[in-house]
Amino acid sequence: MSRPVTIALDAMGGDHGPEVVVPAALQALERNDTLRLILVGEEGLLRALLGRHRVPDGRRLELRHASQQVGMDELPSRALRTKKDSSMRRAIDLVKAGEADAAVSAGNTGALMAIARFVLKTLPGIDRPAIITAIPAARGHTHVLDLGANVDCTSDQLFQFAVMGAVLAEAVDGVAQPRVGLLNIGEEEIKGNDSVKEAARLLEGSSLNYVGFVEADDIFLGEVDVVVCDGFTGNVALKASEGTAKLISAFLREAFTRNPLTRLAGLCAAPVLRALRRRIDPRRYNGASLLGLNGTVIKSHGAADALAFANAIRIACVEVEKAVPERISARIESLLAERQVV
Amino acid sequence: MSRPVTIALDAMGGDHGPEVVVPAALQALERNDTLRLILVGEEGLLRALLGRHRVPDGRRLELRHASQQVGMDELPSRALRTKKDSSMRRAIDLVKAGEADAAVSAGNTGALMAIARFVLKTLPGIDRPAIITAIPAARGHTHVLDLGANVDCTSDQLFQFAVMGAVLAEAVDGVAQPRVGLLNIGEEEIKGNDSVKEAARLLEGSSLNYVGFVEADDIFLGEVDVVVCDGFTGNVALKASEGTAKLISAFLREAFTRNPLTRLAGLCAAPVLRALRRRIDPRRYNGASLLGLNGTVIKSHGAADALAFANAIRIACVEVEKAVPERISARIESLLAERQVV
Repeated sequence: MSRPVTIALDAMGGDHGPEVVVPAALQALERNDTLRLILVGEEGLLRALLGRHRVPDGRRLELRHASQQVGMDELPSRALRTKKDSSMRRAIDLVKAGEADAAVSAGNTGALMAIARFVLKTLPGIDRPAIITAIPAARGHTHVLDLGANVDCTSDQLFQFAVMGAVLAEAVDGVAQPRVGLLNIGEEEIKGNDSVKEAARLLEGSSLNYVGFVEADDIFLGEVDVVVCDGFTGNVALKASEGTAKLISAFLREAFTRNPLTRLAGLCAAPVLRALRRRIDPRRYNGASLLGLNGTVIKSHGAADALAFANAIRIACVEVEKAVPERISARIESLLAERQVV
Repeated sequence: MSRPVTIALDAMGGDHGPEVVVPAALQALERNDTLRLILVGEEGLLRALLGRHRVPDGRRLELRHASQQVGMDELPSRALRTKKDSSMRRAIDLVKAGEADAAVSAGNTGALMAIARFVLKTLPGIDRPAIITAIPAARGHTHVLDLGANVDCTSDQLFQFAVMGAVLAEAVDGVAQPRVGLLNIGEEEIKGNDSVKEAARLLEGSSLNYVGFVEADDIFLGEVDVVVCDGFTGNVALKASEGTAKLISAFLREAFTRNPLTRLAGLCAAPVLRALRRRIDPRRYNGASLLGLNGTVIKSHGAADALAFANAIRIACVEVEKAVPERISARIESLLAERQVV
């Protein structure tokens, strides 16, 4: 039996705040009977909202008051300086204090990263945390990092991302020796910038299962478990993929509503298309991890609904159970030692 | 009436060489009666292939022998040095000599860029050529550059890309004052690297219709006409989009062939899905332009079939008719003058 896990939720973050976080918390408690949750936010509001729901087991749900909240467009440096009693900050403080094993927030990504880094600190051997998420692929999914926390990356940082990604894939998917690829473009001679080239050298010399350069379309094949890139590139790949998926989905809708005949075809196809939509439902993939910190912090999409936010809570549980930060710490230490021996 | 246009085709380039280029050339001649084409390649082979087809009007099709060909994986520097009688080089030489108005090749992109740049030179005021293509969007399409010719870009280069993209959109789509966006990521404070930030400043100070930062999903909305980025990022956005489209298409196929019932739904939906596939058919978008050169050079996808290659020829025609290089030259000159006045 797994030990009970306690997760602090920033109840005020995201586009919908407690309207989404409260029902998501109740869903998560219902699905996992060893889970404990701490809802952090405007206590009166939270209490009122909870009054409207059937709370499965009150002992597993606690409230903590926080008087402030971080705005979705607030500058991270400002949020760090002036929002010490925000729901986001308090949730992360609970992780630092050991009262919670992880924090989940749908708030401002930059602020979450800045606060988490300031409060929890990075693990020894890790320069900067990175954002990672699983992206659906033809076979399974691919973990991609960094997705936007670091615009310019040194080769050492890219190497650290590779270690963190490999540890996550190993822990979460149970893959032994996950295959790690380095994102690059296909043109010979102009291949990659200097940090990418140097990172490739570092990875080749390590005991990670490094498979070489991959291109952005390889993310969607699932032939590697982890794709490593700087945060600018990773963010662009993710957004380009989202944009394409939305475009195709709009085109599909248009195609099936063009005239009475296509509408009829649409009726026939509807159950199949619905099943497909469920399969690639981004809510089922919601929850990006801030890796490299002394603690587990999960970022939910700002527009997440309760189903999606509950998935982010699930991811937090898994990472806590698999002790991802401790594993990263151990792995980076052994890899750096190995490098010194060579 | 438009003046006759002559285009040199690298008949040996791409995965399929003359097997694709020859029928594509014949298709293009049939569709445009003022077009003249010069097929450059292994003359015996080309003659034999032409013998198998009905040639619409022999006077509009000429052969030029070239004894070498550039390999798809050949290093650009090597191709430049050792392949002076290649079909690719000869086709570009014809543009330089004024015998052709443009060249089209499905060969090695890096080699084509290196040879075109060496033979034709860049326009005054342009540091490096860029690769641009139109990407389908919810409303129309978006021109994106650079797509892989330049890994690291200075702010001046990004500014030049913006000018070139705006001129192309204006000339080819007939849009007055095309809206130009600069690709960035959404995180505040860590927004962009230094060249992106400085490029934004240059664009804001210019008379271009600069709309500000856009994210990669905006490419697929069509609310800007041109998206500017460095070649690494652009290539990643393009490949991520291609990968996503292929993944969704594979998922659709799987969903409709899962069991007899879904197969039946698939039969109903087939005509609609086929129409949709035609709409987003990448062959209809085939043909990327190498902008910033003293001449028009179009890169066809290496795996292009005759329909796709014929589209690349069509794009070459349009750019010649609209005098794109001359317009770029004039525009960059006036924008640089404007900058000096300020």
